[in-house]
Amino acid sequence: MRKVAILGIGQTKIDEHWDLSLREIGGNAAFAAMQDAGLEKVDSLFIGNMLSPLVDGQNQLGTFFSDWIGLWGQEAVKVEAACASGAAALRAGLMAVGSGEIESALVVGVEKMTDKAGHDVTSALATAADADYEVEQGISFVGINALVMRRYMYEFGWKHEDFAPFSINAHANAMHNPFARLHEKITAEKFEKSSMVATPINLLDASPIGDGAAAAIIVPAEKVVSVKSRPRITVAGSASATDSIAVHSRKDPLFLSAAYESSKRAYEMSGSQPQDIDVFEVHDAFSIMSALSLEASGFADRGQGVRLGLENQIGPKGRIPICTRGGLKARGHPVGATGMYQVVEVVQQLRNECGETQVAGARTGMAQNIGGSGATIITHILKTE
Amino acid sequence: MRKVAILGIGQTKIDEHWDLSLREIGGNAAFAAMQDAGLEKVDSLFIGNMLSPLVDGQNQLGTFFSDWIGLWGQEAVKVEAACASGAAALRAGLMAVGSGEIESALVVGVEKMTDKAGHDVTSALATAADADYEVEQGISFVGINALVMRRYMYEFGWKHEDFAPFSINAHANAMHNPFARLHEKITAEKFEKSSMVATPINLLDASPIGDGAAAAIIVPAEKVVSVKSRPRITVAGSASATDSIAVHSRKDPLFLSAAYESSKRAYEMSGSQPQDIDVFEVHDAFSIMSALSLEASGFADRGQGVRLGLENQIGPKGRIPICTRGGLKARGHPVGATGMYQVVEVVQQLRNECGETQVAGARTGMAQNIGGSGATIITHILKTE
Repeated sequence: MRKVAILGIGQTKIDEHWDLSLREIGGNAAFAAMQDAGLEKVDSLFIGNMLSPLVDGQNQLGTFFSDWIGLWGQEAVKVEAACASGAAALRAGLMAVGSGEIESALVVGVEKMTDKAGHDVTSALATAADADYEVEQGISFVGINALVMRRYMYEFGWKHEDFAPFSINAHANAMHNPFARLHEKITAEKFEKSSMVATPINLLDASPIGDGAAAAIIVPAEKVVSVKSRPRITVAGSASATDSIAVHSRKDPLFLSAAYESSKRAYEMSGSQPQDIDVFEVHDAFSIMSALSLEASGFADRGQGVRLGLENQIGPKGRIPICTRGGLKARGHPVGATGMYQVVEVVQQLRNECGETQVAGARTGMAQNIGGSGATIITHILKTE
Repeated sequence: MRKVAILGIGQTKIDEHWDLSLREIGGNAAFAAMQDAGLEKVDSLFIGNMLSPLVDGQNQLGTFFSDWIGLWGQEAVKVEAACASGAAALRAGLMAVGSGEIESALVVGVEKMTDKAGHDVTSALATAADADYEVEQGISFVGINALVMRRYMYEFGWKHEDFAPFSINAHANAMHNPFARLHEKITAEKFEKSSMVATPINLLDASPIGDGAAAAIIVPAEKVVSVKSRPRITVAGSASATDSIAVHSRKDPLFLSAAYESSKRAYEMSGSQPQDIDVFEVHDAFSIMSALSLEASGFADRGQGVRLGLENQIGPKGRIPICTRGGLKARGHPVGATGMYQVVEVVQQLRNECGETQVAGARTGMAQNIGGSGATIITHILKTE
């Protein structure tokens, strides 16, 4: 596969966009990416989205957006892998451009979730879990994650308050990201006093949903010239791996084997090790997921992910900076768009555009996008050259 | 992109499968394809599906099926392009294997639609149209096609009965296909007397929905040895093109520009012309679509597609045999699975396995899968070597 570079990026603020349609939200991110790339046209469009059939009454989103943004006639398709849809769309676009079949691809992760009532969204999100074996029993998606978190605390002896640094770091970083949904600094005390959602997950363990879109334009790397003001950023590693859909079917519900597999393959492909990663955008849909993701990706021993937070290693100046733009927790989690927000944020870090939360000298960044409770996990490693 | 061959195929009968779950239907086709290919494992899984979030309460179908069929850990993803989801999944798999990133892919088109009541399915199918500009006005999917058919009849002076040969041919061919939903020969008289659905589309102009799955395994062509009893079948041409989602936005609602574009690119890629195509599996969701597809793909002049039927040129012995296993009309139309049924049927023709409806000496076959009312059109050309 030929090497692929990211030529442009774009994103919208994550919010309740009552004034914008699904079309406009995705289109705005797409136009921003095209402007950033200096292109007026691309060959193809890959859309990552999970919920539009359920909450927007719209399928065929690839063509829906090629129509809206003026790419009439061009190839377009939607890719879905629950909350990993964004990264899955990038990976599909990557293989299309990498194969030589296509010369440029616009990849957009987009979601408009807030037009529906809360219980409708909860039902829609449950389609990421196993309809026959989990959802049929009445458990919600947060309920599944609560069981995992409770077991983790029991197995490894952590208290709920030990997870606070994940949430505090994410909220602190989001203060400097104008695209983030939440701009609200939190404290350990506030974390502990937050309303319970599904014991032990409280409101500050959980990421907020939202409407938003993030986009990137990818082209063959050979077509991009690296200049000092705009270094060439390549997709050095990309891998997708899966596990059982239902958490109870796993040998070990506390180990993200798909994160282990996909990060291992992405490290191999990019010639990197965990210690080479300067910034890591983790999929902190719930604080427990940050811990599990850090462990399975080689940054902490089993059961010790939370220690990285407690030892102050996850901030922009820490050993492994995570959620540098706010993460799912505070930037927000428009589910099918999230994977592309992560990639856009890693590009911003590698371009040295992150101001207060810039990781000094960042040259290698990783984004890991998770579908379901660890069922589909896709890892991308980007590098400047 | 390296050349890719189809190593194995599998399919289930299309029916109301009250006794089988979504898992089992897709799994049965997947297992059949793996058995046909002589493989016990593949590297990746690409699922084509349109309606499972809406009618089965299940998203993340890639991982859902990798879990069910025992491909634990392997890459898996779902691709959606309305009724063109099947071919879109094949094209995604093709670029993945073609890029060199993946060595084998199992592509499955699957749909379980009949558990829901008819009006629920009608609503779900409407998500292929434009939610804001078409569906919001209350029009159904068959309603949109009825407007197109009526205009076509007006513009080109055809009567409803002139469309009968499409339906008669499809039903006659399905008699010899054990996987077809309908086994019922029809006559011109029966066609004209059939119940009206949305004037001028009656029940015998329209394809029946159903539950079903069809699958293929693709690998690099260099790994497949061609033997007389099992000739090597390559994907010689593959292209996807789009048009506006809403039919009223098109310059000419009677011309499938996406079929024109995608067939043109597929012809170029495969070094073929329309006259080289021995068998053509068209997307006859409605009889009008057969006419439009034949015209835009170079087999008839504008407004003259119906003439091919009237002149008896579409049967297995005709100039351009279509719907040789029953087409959407009589084999059935499990929407997201249809594109893979078409590909499987072309492979059967190229393998000389079609008995009564075998096209003598077929060496080049084309499958064209349509999403929405011509919004996404994907054309594949397969060849024996």
